[in-house]
Amino acid sequence: MRCVILGGGGFLGRHVGKVMATAGYELWCVDMCPPHGPESTPWFKGHVQADYWDVDHWWAECGEPECVVHLASSTVPATASTDPVSDVNQNLIGLLKLLEGLGRQPSAPRLLYASSGGAVYGIPQSVPIDEDHPLIPIGAYGITKVACEHHIRLAETQYGLQTRILRISNPYGEWQRPNGVQGVISVFAHRALMGLPVDVWGDGSVVRDFVYAGDVAQAFVTAAHHQGSARVFNLGGGGGHSVNHIIKTLEQLLGRHVERKTHAARSFDPPINVLDIRRAQEELSWTPRVAFEQGVAKTLEWLRVAVK
Amino acid sequence: MRCVILGGGGFLGRHVGKVMATAGYELWCVDMCPPHGPESTPWFKGHVQADYWDVDHWWAECGEPECVVHLASSTVPATASTDPVSDVNQNLIGLLKLLEGLGRQPSAPRLLYASSGGAVYGIPQSVPIDEDHPLIPIGAYGITKVACEHHIRLAETQYGLQTRILRISNPYGEWQRPNGVQGVISVFAHRALMGLPVDVWGDGSVVRDFVYAGDVAQAFVTAAHHQGSARVFNLGGGGGHSVNHIIKTLEQLLGRHVERKTHAARSFDPPINVLDIRRAQEELSWTPRVAFEQGVAKTLEWLRVAVK
Repeated sequence: MRCVILGGGGFLGRHVGKVMATAGYELWCVDMCPPHGPESTPWFKGHVQADYWDVDHWWAECGEPECVVHLASSTVPATASTDPVSDVNQNLIGLLKLLEGLGRQPSAPRLLYASSGGAVYGIPQSVPIDEDHPLIPIGAYGITKVACEHHIRLAETQYGLQTRILRISNPYGEWQRPNGVQGVISVFAHRALMGLPVDVWGDGSVVRDFVYAGDVAQAFVTAAHHQGSARVFNLGGGGGHSVNHIIKTLEQLLGRHVERKTHAARSFDPPINVLDIRRAQEELSWTPRVAFEQGVAKTLEWLRVAVK
Repeated sequence: MRCVILGGGGFLGRHVGKVMATAGYELWCVDMCPPHGPESTPWFKGHVQADYWDVDHWWAECGEPECVVHLASSTVPATASTDPVSDVNQNLIGLLKLLEGLGRQPSAPRLLYASSGGAVYGIPQSVPIDEDHPLIPIGAYGITKVACEHHIRLAETQYGLQTRILRISNPYGEWQRPNGVQGVISVFAHRALMGLPVDVWGDGSVVRDFVYAGDVAQAFVTAAHHQGSARVFNLGGGGGHSVNHIIKTLEQLLGRHVERKTHAARSFDPPINVLDIRRAQEELSWTPRVAFEQGVAKTLEWLRVAVK
């Protein structure tokens, strides 16, 4: 099966590309950024430098793919809140153009969309959160994701696209930039490696759901040929880890103390957010296989080599 | 209290303006269209011709209002589905600019927002639909309305705005254009007056919730000074009416037969959509007072005089 990864040069895009190539897919990368040299993402048959929504630009060049994985995003929760208009322009209007462009092709591909299990549900009414939990996002990023999900649902009848939405909790692993405003594991691991203190809001008891990005990638492989009636799947680590536990894990792996810089708790941080992943386990025959300590060790190893 | 009506020259804007003026408010109109002469909307102290989101343009001229009623919209469900990008640009990005602009003012006003009880819920899981029903819109218009509602909810903490969202079912009455693609009562009444057949999809048993626009306007008066914790209110007629009943009502009022032109049923029309209005009745001390037959008679009377 021929598959295009929109945003294939990014953190998740690399994981999904690598795993899908191993599973036998012919893979193409569409990304605004140029490829970083032939070695960095050898699993792609080719790269097209284009806006993800500019289907006419990449469709033929990527060989009229049967599957499109949409991972392209230039915003994160913090930037979306600061500039919600840009977030809507890039992610919602971009998606509308993408759907219209895909619908115009003679053979409608299947679209796999990376949504956010951490952003679309808002403050959990019960934990673990299943896919039927109300969608009451508490930030601009999540509001846009919800709107995108609704439009993707309608695109099945409007454009004849097959779609699957994957609500990913907090993915982490190799290739996640450690100097961003997202990805607490990479950020903490990098600072710990550098001997710098890590920032903790409140007492560190806040629990989040982390899932190794290589595991997430495996779910895209099965979602590409899933035949059931479900359209939305949570992808999480199967349990939660507190901020304190992240730090303790790093201390154990590094064999030394990690200093904390403590700040006042943030009112908008729900105390716990853990996804119910039973639907993905049952319908996609998927389960996260990389244990938390093992995933954090992989992240540390990559940071040691790749990042100064 | 000084109040601005964004879209004050439109169908709902005129009703809300007239009723709020009677209730003692000092009213200003912001509308892209110029006023239709001094007689047509005498309840406004002044008109500013501006984009609703261009707060800097109208804020000072309207005397720094304590209340902003947002009824400005240039799309309807049909046009939003045809061109969802324009719908997002005009209604969602416009709203984001409006919120940011209001938040910049030294005294944050209260914002009353007209949402759509017919569009945000999608296919009813139970009837009557209360405000806690899941929001699963089945069209671009409803998706944008839901995104706007979420941003308005967040604007309370982000910008310190007081907000109330009014989910209106199908408003009808004087000033509704009878040649549009929305407003079945006006369209049917106008065609019946002209001796033309009315278009019926399916067997006419589809039930919708209609509320007289003058009644809707009364709810805005109380929402402007509501002090409870609820932020979202359904506004409906308190019951449903089938398409067949609309036609029968017109036949009784006109004293003659109305011809039907029958088309195949549309798959996207839910068989019934009726709002639960108990929250508005209890918290806003509001209830629809104009009976269906009386409201349709008012509409007919206005069409007879105003529309050729």
